[in-house]
Amino acid sequence: MATVKLITDAEAEADPAVKAVFDDIRATRKTDFINNFWRGLANDPVTLKRTWDSLRAVMTGDTALSPVVQEMIYIAVSTANACSYCVHSHTAAARAKGMTPEMHAELLAIIGLAAQTNHLVTAMQLPVDDVFLVE
Amino acid sequence: MATVKLITDAEAEADPAVKAVFDDIRATRKTDFINNFWRGLANDPVTLKRTWDSLRAVMTGDTALSPVVQEMIYIAVSTANACSYCVHSHTAAARAKGMTPEMHAELLAIIGLAAQTNHLVTAMQLPVDDVFLVE
Amino acid sequence: MATVKLITDAEAEADPAVKAVFDDIRATRKTDFINNFWRGLANDPVTLKRTWDSLRAVMTGDTALSPVVQEMIYIAVSTANACSYCVHSHTAAARAKGMTPEMHAELLAIIGLAAQTNHLVTAMQLPVDDVFLVE
Amino acid sequence: MATVKLITDAEAEADPAVKAVFDDIRATRKTDFINNFWRGLANDPVTLKRTWDSLRAVMTGDTALSPVVQEMIYIAVSTANACSYCVHSHTAAARAKGMTPEMHAELLAIIGLAAQTNHLVTAMQLPVDDVFLVE
Amino acid sequence: MATVKLITDAEAEADPAVKAVFDDIRATRKTDFINNFWRGLANDPVTLKRTWDSLRAVMTGDTALSPVVQEMIYIAVSTANACSYCVHSHTAAARAKGMTPEMHAELLAIIGLAAQTNHLVTAMQLPVDDVFLVE
Amino acid sequence: MATVKLITDAEAEADPAVKAVFDDIRATRKTDFINNFWRGLANDPVTLKRTWDSLRAVMTGDTALSPVVQEMIYIAVSTANACSYCVHSHTAAARAKGMTPEMHAELLAIIGLAAQTNHLVTAMQLPVDDVFLVE
Repeated sequence: MATVKLITDAEAEADPAVKAVFDDIRATRKTDFINNFWRGLANDPVTLKRTWDSLRAVMTGDTALSPVVQEMIYIAVSTANACSYCVHSHTAAARAKGMTPEMHAELLAIIGLAAQTNHLVTAMQLPVDDVFLVE
Repeated sequence: MATVKLITDAEAEADPAVKAVFDDIRATRKTDFINNFWRGLANDPVTLKRTWDSLRAVMTGDTALSPVVQEMIYIAVSTANACSYCVHSHTAAARAKGMTPEMHAELLAIIGLAAQTNHLVTAMQLPVDDVFLVE
Repeated sequence: MATVKLITDAEAEADPAVKAVFDDIRATRKTDFINNFWRGLANDPVTLKRTWDSLRAVMTGDTALSPVVQEMIYIAVSTANACSYCVHSHTAAARAKGMTPEMHAELLAIIGLAAQTNHLVTAMQLPVDDVFLVE
Repeated sequence: MATVKLITDAEAEADPAVKAVFDDIRATRKTDFINNFWRGLANDPVTLKRTWDSLRAVMTGDTALSPVVQEMIYIAVSTANACSYCVHSHTAAARAKGMTPEMHAELLAIIGLAAQTNHLVTAMQLPVDDVFLVE
Repeated sequence: MATVKLITDAEAEADPAVKAVFDDIRATRKTDFINNFWRGLANDPVTLKRTWDSLRAVMTGDTALSPVVQEMIYIAVSTANACSYCVHSHTAAARAKGMTPEMHAELLAIIGLAAQTNHLVTAMQLPVDDVFLVE
Repeated sequence: MATVKLITDAEAEADPAVKAVFDDIRATRKTDFINNFWRGLANDPVTLKRTWDSLRAVMTGDTALSPVVQEMIYIAVSTANACSYCVHSHTAAARAKGMTPEMHAELLAIIGLAAQTNHLVTAMQLPVDDVFLVE
């Protein structure tokens, strides 16, 4: 169904560059599960490593936003970009990190509202108010 | 520059339906300032009222997410929808509600990262992992 | 400001392929005015001709939809694709073909509503109901 | 498959807020059928009610545009926003409201043409002609 | 599953306008296979012919870019527009025209990178540097 | 005009992390010019460095695609994502790396064509042909 092969654990074991990233994903996330995103990317070990390093740097460690807020922002972008897989995976991640049904409901309401006002603004081609400009 | 007229305060005063919404925006936000979004929408008092009522219901009162988180989600959607005016207005709103430079920097990093992985996923056409499905 | 030159009438006169299209635009639209879209495309006379031929074939002659409805559909797509120039030009065209302020207001309301429900649906990843499937 | 549960009729019966909306959808549309969009939204009775109230207000009653034109505009936005479910549901709705195969064919031709010229314009970054500006 | 019927070979044989295009597709591509895109479009022989004529004119014959580069550009646009079918069909076409796994990997890396910087730029609303402007 | 400050050379000099990236951009590109993208990102030295490292890794060195093809793919994605700044900057970059007017014209034709067929496919909701599936 995908346009690339999904690299299996056996194949990952055979390529040290892929194995190193899969090992780090498992250690960082404290789970043996590797989702299809990484199995697809593993066709290109360089992009696999760069993408995982970026994601780990942005989303983990000493962050300004809480993990659940990070995931809700991720859902918002993924929805607007119409990425079905991403909406599924980050909704699951947000729930695992504490998103309650009330938070999910409000997230969806904001996403819908923003899309509505985005389109209204674009259809009206409004000039930016001076007070919104930096300096 | 816009595709509609921007309704002035004088014009708003002359139309009770518009005046009622402008008054409520001012009272709710505790400022005399009405930004161009509402001045453009005011060409259609019915859509003006429905949009304001929706926005007030979703974004104010007893919410599950904090006001600054709500605005950051709004920025995320507006960016992915390429709405210049909306990015400007909601970045200003997020700052007014407490978004620090560190939070803004992390928000941008997540938006950029999500866009990158959204596009990688779409180009690979990955099947959703079973564990991400509800039930 | 553009990434291509805008071909002037003098330049168009010097290239028979461009001149032929500009002449046909003027004759079809019964105006001497050629907007920047065609002046930009005229850098490539082949794409200019193909695009104009397609637009004339779809939008003029014996059509199933009225000219004003055609333009409103054009505005809807242009808004969702965030094309500022296109929103401006097709809003002007829709007005010239009979779009009243009431029709414009309703068009904007539908565009906003559709964007909202599009995003809600994508965030919820809903399966298509059987009754919506053809056959 | 969805990221939320689809609320059944039995569950809807047990929640007066959901039941009231489902009853109104059935009465307004003169059918017992409730499609998945409303069953997904029903996880949040407040957003369910606000969305239905907006949709009913915009799309029914004394409108400036005919029901079939409204649905075709909805299809146009949904296509540009790449919402699969929405394209399915509103194509079915447009047919039910009188969209002929000829109208559907022309709608698709316009959507395709608009997408093409939208992208050409964005790639050329054209300045808006003065005559397209309001005032 | 589609919103239109997929025209079979038997139906195509019965309509000279459709048959002529299908014959030309087969002759140009040197294969008997007609993919679903053309079978869906064939519900409207006029759009079928115009679309095929445009595609053949742009993508075949004496072109400035090599066939594999053309297909990679097609994949890039299709990914950003979230068109699942198009990503599948043009990835297959690119492979048939010589895209190696290394080229595919680099294409995906560029698409992901571009999406990331596109979103960062939009979130920062940067003014265009003077040196990037034509003239 | 931007939502962030544009970091000047004087400010960059005062921050070793920013200075190191600016120095590397200048050395890699063999020019003293730093465009606004990097000046905006420099508000967050960590994202600045990660983004520059990614871009340098993907776009320079021993690549599978030629520099001009890389930039044309970048233009294609930026156009579909409606990023005005990005279209400007990468069109300038593509020209500097050898994009001729003929190549630019063909690029635009493909982008327009792809957008058109993307939208037609989405409006028809076509199932993917079996032959396009991997394995």
